[in-house]
Amino acid sequence: MTEDTTRPVVVFLPAPHPSGRIFTPQTRAALEAEFDVVDIEAEPQRVDERLGDAFAIVGQPDLPRARLDAAPHLRAVLNVEGNFYPNVDYAACFARGIHVLGCGPAYAQAVAEFSLGLTIDLARGISREDRAFRAGRERYVADGTTDSILLRGADVGLIGFGNLGRALRPLLDPFRCTVRCYDPWLPDATLAQHGVEAVSLPDLLRTSRFVFVLATVTAESEHLLGARELALLPPGARLVLVSRAPVVDFEALLDRVESGALLAAVDVWPSEPMPAEHRARALEGLVLSPHRAGGIPAAFREVGQMVLDDLRLIARGLPPVRMQLATPELVGRYRNRPVSTG
Amino acid sequence: MTEDTTRPVVVFLPAPHPSGRIFTPQTRAALEAEFDVVDIEAEPQRVDERLGDAFAIVGQPDLPRARLDAAPHLRAVLNVEGNFYPNVDYAACFARGIHVLGCGPAYAQAVAEFSLGLTIDLARGISREDRAFRAGRERYVADGTTDSILLRGADVGLIGFGNLGRALRPLLDPFRCTVRCYDPWLPDATLAQHGVEAVSLPDLLRTSRFVFVLATVTAESEHLLGARELALLPPGARLVLVSRAPVVDFEALLDRVESGALLAAVDVWPSEPMPAEHRARALEGLVLSPHRAGGIPAAFREVGQMVLDDLRLIARGLPPVRMQLATPELVGRYRNRPVSTG
Amino acid sequence: MTEDTTRPVVVFLPAPHPSGRIFTPQTRAALEAEFDVVDIEAEPQRVDERLGDAFAIVGQPDLPRARLDAAPHLRAVLNVEGNFYPNVDYAACFARGIHVLGCGPAYAQAVAEFSLGLTIDLARGISREDRAFRAGRERYVADGTTDSILLRGADVGLIGFGNLGRALRPLLDPFRCTVRCYDPWLPDATLAQHGVEAVSLPDLLRTSRFVFVLATVTAESEHLLGARELALLPPGARLVLVSRAPVVDFEALLDRVESGALLAAVDVWPSEPMPAEHRARALEGLVLSPHRAGGIPAAFREVGQMVLDDLRLIARGLPPVRMQLATPELVGRYRNRPVSTG
Amino acid sequence: MTEDTTRPVVVFLPAPHPSGRIFTPQTRAALEAEFDVVDIEAEPQRVDERLGDAFAIVGQPDLPRARLDAAPHLRAVLNVEGNFYPNVDYAACFARGIHVLGCGPAYAQAVAEFSLGLTIDLARGISREDRAFRAGRERYVADGTTDSILLRGADVGLIGFGNLGRALRPLLDPFRCTVRCYDPWLPDATLAQHGVEAVSLPDLLRTSRFVFVLATVTAESEHLLGARELALLPPGARLVLVSRAPVVDFEALLDRVESGALLAAVDVWPSEPMPAEHRARALEGLVLSPHRAGGIPAAFREVGQMVLDDLRLIARGLPPVRMQLATPELVGRYRNRPVSTG
Repeated sequence: MTEDTTRPVVVFLPAPHPSGRIFTPQTRAALEAEFDVVDIEAEPQRVDERLGDAFAIVGQPDLPRARLDAAPHLRAVLNVEGNFYPNVDYAACFARGIHVLGCGPAYAQAVAEFSLGLTIDLARGISREDRAFRAGRERYVADGTTDSILLRGADVGLIGFGNLGRALRPLLDPFRCTVRCYDPWLPDATLAQHGVEAVSLPDLLRTSRFVFVLATVTAESEHLLGARELALLPPGARLVLVSRAPVVDFEALLDRVESGALLAAVDVWPSEPMPAEHRARALEGLVLSPHRAGGIPAAFREVGQMVLDDLRLIARGLPPVRMQLATPELVGRYRNRPVSTG
Repeated sequence: MTEDTTRPVVVFLPAPHPSGRIFTPQTRAALEAEFDVVDIEAEPQRVDERLGDAFAIVGQPDLPRARLDAAPHLRAVLNVEGNFYPNVDYAACFARGIHVLGCGPAYAQAVAEFSLGLTIDLARGISREDRAFRAGRERYVADGTTDSILLRGADVGLIGFGNLGRALRPLLDPFRCTVRCYDPWLPDATLAQHGVEAVSLPDLLRTSRFVFVLATVTAESEHLLGARELALLPPGARLVLVSRAPVVDFEALLDRVESGALLAAVDVWPSEPMPAEHRARALEGLVLSPHRAGGIPAAFREVGQMVLDDLRLIARGLPPVRMQLATPELVGRYRNRPVSTG
Repeated sequence: MTEDTTRPVVVFLPAPHPSGRIFTPQTRAALEAEFDVVDIEAEPQRVDERLGDAFAIVGQPDLPRARLDAAPHLRAVLNVEGNFYPNVDYAACFARGIHVLGCGPAYAQAVAEFSLGLTIDLARGISREDRAFRAGRERYVADGTTDSILLRGADVGLIGFGNLGRALRPLLDPFRCTVRCYDPWLPDATLAQHGVEAVSLPDLLRTSRFVFVLATVTAESEHLLGARELALLPPGARLVLVSRAPVVDFEALLDRVESGALLAAVDVWPSEPMPAEHRARALEGLVLSPHRAGGIPAAFREVGQMVLDDLRLIARGLPPVRMQLATPELVGRYRNRPVSTG
Repeated sequence: MTEDTTRPVVVFLPAPHPSGRIFTPQTRAALEAEFDVVDIEAEPQRVDERLGDAFAIVGQPDLPRARLDAAPHLRAVLNVEGNFYPNVDYAACFARGIHVLGCGPAYAQAVAEFSLGLTIDLARGISREDRAFRAGRERYVADGTTDSILLRGADVGLIGFGNLGRALRPLLDPFRCTVRCYDPWLPDATLAQHGVEAVSLPDLLRTSRFVFVLATVTAESEHLLGARELALLPPGARLVLVSRAPVVDFEALLDRVESGALLAAVDVWPSEPMPAEHRARALEGLVLSPHRAGGIPAAFREVGQMVLDDLRLIARGLPPVRMQLATPELVGRYRNRPVSTG
C-alpha cells in the first residue's frame, strides 16, 4: 500500500451519478484514506487544475490529446457509466498504456435478475392478471392459464452474449433449457464453454420459445430484428428486450405484439420518456418497464466498489479486474446513446 | 407387459378434471392400449359396476369400507388432484396394501417457477411499474428503483419444505442465497441435504428478506403467520404466498402490506372468488394472482402422464414412483379445501 | 416430544455394526434421553424380553410372524444395514403398518464421491502412473497422457438410478455431460426430471465413454453385463463397478480389460477376499478397490443420525423421511448377499 | 471474411509443440484456407523472411525491438505455450497495440478435472489401496477406510484464483463446500462473485481440510508455503499441488507427509525428471504424478482451436477472446520455468 504522504491523486467528477449514489460512506472513506481525492464534482470545469500529477480520473470528462498530454502520470480513467463515448482520445490512451475503464459489469446481475422476472411474467401472465384482478376481471385456476408455459426444458435464444448474457446464463441452469445464442463477435467454443449452442440469427429465431435481446448497438446490430426476423419466431413466443431499443425495429415489434403472435417485455425505448399517447401503453401483450433493469441501488453501490477495487489494484501495479477495459476494437463500435440517469 | 386378453381393469372417472385436460391423445391412447379402461367420466354413479375386477381406480369417488370390500383385486387408487380427502377408508387401503396416490408433484415445477416470478416482481416492482406506465406515470431509470433489491446473496426463508420447496430450492441455486427453512415435519439433516438451514419460525422471520409460504394446511399450520409473526419480518421484506391461504392470518397480512412495511404476492385467497370490493384489489404493495400458480396446461398433462406411468409400474409389480403416496401419518392431517378447477 | 416417564421402548441390537461405529456420543446420548433404550447388543438372544412394550427395534433380528405378534405396539424396525433380508415377515409388517426401514441412503454420498474419484482415475491414469513413478518408470507431460480424456462433455451411461445414481448425478452437473440411463424400474419422465435420458441397455453401452454400474442385484439384473454386452462399449471406454459384482459377468469383464479394450475400476468382487493369486491383481487397466466405496466413518455416523431422526418422527406420529422404506414390491426382489462389515 | 487474394500472413513456428499435436487436420485446413500460412516449423531460423508483411506470428521466437520494427503490419503474437517469457519486447508490443497471447486457458479444464481426481484419491486412498490390493494386502470394507473423508460440506482452500481456480470452482459446486481463497491480486468482491470467501493465507491454512495450490510463481509467491505455513494445516489435511513446484518448500512438504500429518498429491516437481532414488517415490502418504495434469490430447487440440479462433477475430477487427492477453502488469512478474513438453 502507498504511504499517505504519497497518496496517488485521483481527480473525481463522477457525473452522471451524484457521488452519494455510487459511493457509500464506507467506500468513500476508503477512497479518501488511500488516495488524494480532488473532488471537483460540483465544479467539473476545474478538471485541468490537477492533471499534472493525476494518477487517475474518476468520471468521463472530455479527454482530447492535449489534455492527456497535460497528465503525464495518468494511469487510468474510470468511467462510472456503462458506455465508452467518443469524447476520449482512446488511441492516445492505448499507446500510453492508460487503462480506460467502464462499469457495465456492475449492472449485469441486476439486469439478469430483472430479465428472468420479465420472462416468467411473460410465461405466466403475472402483471396482466394482476391488472385484471384489480379491475374485478380475474379468472381463477385453469381459466386464466391457457397460455401459461413452463421455462423448464424450453428452447431459449440469446441475442448477444456479453456481460448480460453471461450473467443471465447461470440463472437458466436449473431450468435445463436448451440455450442457443447468436453473437457474431464470439467463436462457437466460447459459447460452448457456457453451455450455449452457437447458431445463426434465423435459426435462433425459428427455434426459440423465449428470446432475450441482449446485444449492444453497433453499426451491424441496428435494427437487427425487423419485421422479417420477428416473423420467424414461433407463434406464442416471448421476447425480452433489455439492452438497447435500436437493436429492434420497434414499430414492427409492437405490430407483432398487437397481432397476438408475440408476447414481449420492453425495458428500453426508442425515446425516453415515451409519448403520452403511444399505443404501446395499451397493449395487453406487452410488459412495460421504464428502463429499470440495471439502475438499482445495489448496482450503483457496486460501481463505487468497483472503482475503489480497481484503483487499488492499479496503484499496486496490478491489472484492474472488476471494470470493463476499453479496447481499440470496441471503442468506436458502440453506438449507445447516453442514458440520463437523473 | 400384460397381454391384451388380460389387460388390467381401470375404472376411470377423473373428476374434477375433464379427461381431455389431463390426458393428451397420446397418453389416452397408451392408457387404452395397455389397460381395460372403464370410462365412467360421464356417469360417475356407475362406479360400483366393475369394482369386482377393478385393478385400479383413476379418480376420487367415495371409497368406504364396503366399496373397497367389493373390489378384492384393487391395487391402486389414483387421485388426479393434489389432496387426500376424507372420503376414502385409508386404513382399509393400507391394511390391504392398496396404493392411494395423489398428483401434487405434477404441479410443483409450475408453482416453483411462478413463485420465482412473483419474487422477482416483488423485488423489482415489475407489475407495479407496468401499471404506472400504462397510466402515464412511469419513472425512468433510478427514479423508480429506490426499493429494488437483488435476489443474489439474499436471505431467504421457506416455510414448509415439501413438493413446492423441493422444486423451488434448485431455482435459487444460481443466486447464492442463504436459504433457511422452518418445517417441523423434517429433521435438520434432510434440509441440510438440500442446502437449507433448519431454523425456528421466529428466527426465519427475523432474518429473511424474502419469505415463501409453502406449507400445507394442518391443525398446526392454520394461521401460522399472524400479526405477531409478520411483525418479526425486517422492514421492506417480500412475502410470497402460494400454498394455502389459511396458513396466514389474511387480514393481518393485508394490514402489513397496507402499512408499507411489507410487499407481498398472493396466489391463494380466503375465498375464491374474492369479494368485488375487497381492499386487497387496490393495494399497491400487493401482487394479486387468482390461484394460477400450479394449474397450467403443462402441469395438467403431467398429471395424465403420471397416472399412466404409475399404473404401468404397478401392473408390473413395481412400486409407483411418480405420484405422491398417501401414508397413515399424512392423511387426516391435511385440512385443504378442495379447489374448484372449473 | 414424549415425556420421560413414557419414553418409547427401543430394543437395540445394531449388528452388524458395533454401536460405537454408527452412534457418536452425541447421537447416543440423544437416543437415551428420548427413548427407553433396551441395549441387548451384547446379548442379542434377549430380543424377546421386551417385545411386549417395544415401540421400535433397531437392528435386524429374525422377525417371524410369531415374534411380531408378541410385539403389539411395534411401530418400526430400523435395520442399520443397507439391505432387506428374508428373515422378516414383511407381509405381516405391512398389514400392521409397521415401518421397516433400511439405511442404504446413508452410503449414497460416499459411494458417489468415490465413484467420481474412480472415474477420473480411469480417465487420467492417476493410480497407474503413481505406481509407475514409484517404480522409476514415470513419463512426464505429454508422454504419459496419450489415453487421457476429459469428463467434460463426455457421454456417460448409468446402469440403475436408485440411491447411488441420484447421489452421483449432481456431481456430474458441472461437467455438462450427456447422461443416459437404463433403469427398467423407472419411467422416462422420472429420469428426465434428473436431467437423464432413458435408453435401452444396448444403446447405453454403444454410446457411453464412461459407464457406471449402479444396479442392485435382482433376478433380472444378474449378469446383466456379459461378454456380449461389454463388447458393445466403444474402444477405450471406462467402466466403474460399485454396486454389486453379480450384475456383471466378472471373468468377461476382466477379459475385456486384459485385452486393452476397456479400463475398469472395481469396488465389489465375486468373493471377498479375492483369491491371493487372482489375475485381477496384476491387470494394468484395472483400478482395484476392496469394497471401500460406502463404508466410511461419515457414512456410519449418518446411519446413527438417520435412526435417531426417523425414530423421533415416528414417535411424533410423522412419517419417517431419512431411511429407505421397505415396500411389498421391493423386498424379495433384492438378492444381495450380506456384507461382512468387520 | 478476407478474400483469398489478401489472406493475412501468419508466420508459423509453433514450438515447443509439434504442429500435429495442437492442430487437427480440420483446424489446420481452416487455418490454411483463411490465412497465408508461412510454415517455418522445420526452419525456425527463417522467422525474419516474411516479417515485412506478417499479420501474426504463431509461436514464441525472440522478438526484440528490432525484429518488431521489421514487422510493421504485425497485429498479434500467439504463443502456443502457457507462459510469457522475457524474449519479447512487450513494451513495444503494447505501445503498438500488438496482441501478445498465451494459451494457458486451454489447460485449465484438464488441470481442474485432474485436481478433483487427486483430491478424491487423497480423501479416499484410491491409489494407495490399489497398490495394497496388488500386493495382496487389501483391507475390505471398514478396515481400510478409517482415514476416508467426504468432500461434501468440507472446508476447502484455494491458493490462487486464476485460470485453474476458475475452472476448479464449479466442479466443487455440487459438494456444497465452504471455499476460501487467498489471492493477493484479486479484490474480495471478485472472489465473492465466484462463491469464494477471501481470506489471509494463515486463515486459509488453519481452516482447510483440503488445500489446492494453484498459484503461479512470482517474486511474492516463491516458497509461499514453507514449513511454518504447512504446520498451520489441521491434522489429516490433504494438499494438492498442480501449479508450480517453487510455490512450496518441497522438502518441508515431504517432511510433513512423511510425518503422517498431511496427505498430498504432487503433479509438479522441483526437477523433472526427479532423481531415481528420491525419497518422494516411497512415501505412502503421497500421490505421485509426473506433470500430467494439463497436457492431454484434448487440451493440446484446444490450443490449436484457440489460435484459429483468435486469429479469425483479430483479422475481422474484433478483440481476441479465447487466449490469455499479456498485460504490462503481468509480464515480468511470472517466473515460470519453461516446461519441456517432449
